[in-house]
Amino acid sequence: MAPVKVFGPAMSTNVARVLVCLEEVGAEYEVVDIDFKAMEHKSPEHLVRNPFGQIPAFQDGDLLLFESRAIARYVLRKYKKNEVDLLREGDLKEAAMVDVWTEVDAHTYNPAISPIVYECSSTAHARLPTNQTVVDESLEKLKNVLEVYEARLSKHDYLAGDFVSFADLNHFPYTFYFMATPHAALFDSYPHVKAWWERIMARPAVKKLAAQMVPKKP
Amino acid sequence: MAPVKVFGPAMSTNVARVLVCLEEVGAEYEVVDIDFKAMEHKSPEHLVRNPFGQIPAFQDGDLLLFESRAIARYVLRKYKKNEVDLLREGDLKEAAMVDVWTEVDAHTYNPAISPIVYECSSTAHARLPTNQTVVDESLEKLKNVLEVYEARLSKHDYLAGDFVSFADLNHFPYTFYFMATPHAALFDSYPHVKAWWERIMARPAVKKLAAQMVPKKP
Repeated sequence: MAPVKVFGPAMSTNVARVLVCLEEVGAEYEVVDIDFKAMEHKSPEHLVRNPFGQIPAFQDGDLLLFESRAIARYVLRKYKKNEVDLLREGDLKEAAMVDVWTEVDAHTYNPAISPIVYECSSTAHARLPTNQTVVDESLEKLKNVLEVYEARLSKHDYLAGDFVSFADLNHFPYTFYFMATPHAALFDSYPHVKAWWERIMARPAVKKLAAQMVPKKP
Repeated sequence: MAPVKVFGPAMSTNVARVLVCLEEVGAEYEVVDIDFKAMEHKSPEHLVRNPFGQIPAFQDGDLLLFESRAIARYVLRKYKKNEVDLLREGDLKEAAMVDVWTEVDAHTYNPAISPIVYECSSTAHARLPTNQTVVDESLEKLKNVLEVYEARLSKHDYLAGDFVSFADLNHFPYTFYFMATPHAALFDSYPHVKAWWERIMARPAVKKLAAQMVPKKP
């Protein structure tokens, strides 16, 4: 059987979300490069994969998917094993807690942390001068979010409970880049969050991906 | 067994998302008002339900949930019947398509349509003068989104395929309010989208909710 294909580079946070799930479940996969300078993401071939012309896109035989969280869920369901069950859909309450903290990542954590990553990274995209107002406002938001996380993670080892899940993995890409900004020490004020982050970073799948994501150094 | 509780008013789009799912599955539920003027959403009682002090929150016995999409998924799983299976988690590919278009709603459709609703509504929140630049930019974004939807819905009756799903229902709250703005006629340019919207609005669960959501007239 042909390995599944992921279109887009590992250093994209949304692509990394998919790849870390593929690594966690031990699936065979192929990463297909998309040439943004040649506008390949807007080519007819790619628009069939993703009608909005974005990455990632995903192919499994004749099934084409886009939207990183949807792809990741598909991967986690398809390759689920007793030892690797990151959605917990067999248990109503556990699945609900995985969903709650997956949504918190998407709608609360990412909007606070991602502007800091973009403003403080050294990539071409952000070689514009840093907008300090955006950074300061986002840091305030992030502190409020991390306070809630600290309370949650003082009661449980992971966000959805005492088991690692998709909810935790979703936090990996942006947090990884945040840790390469001058603001990384912020996490030291939240010891349970810091310990949780270290547990995530110790996972072989996460380590493998981290090595492929060029750190955006300040 | 006590009915489940939803905290927050039906006219909130995120609360409506949960309520329409409860109506679709025919579950018994109770809506509990939250007094925003009295800051009840920031009270210790509510912060136990939702540590970010937002609505909706949800209670089923000793289970407390927040984040509307997570609550809705829980409801759709718990009360799933053969005739009402809006997540299709028994079929890998169908579930993936439901997830894809649920994510498109959250990350592409809502960010385009919601600013128009906020700017053009007549509620206290938006009695400030309309920011026409925001409206114009959002309308351009929305047109691009609706073009993709038109292509998709010319091939299938619903977003995830030829079956109604959570993906479609997610579009109800903001689209319902959009249809009360001066820009409603935009949908006439996308006949398959318009027909899809009419199919959604014809559903008894959707009709019931619509009657409870005070239209934000321009």
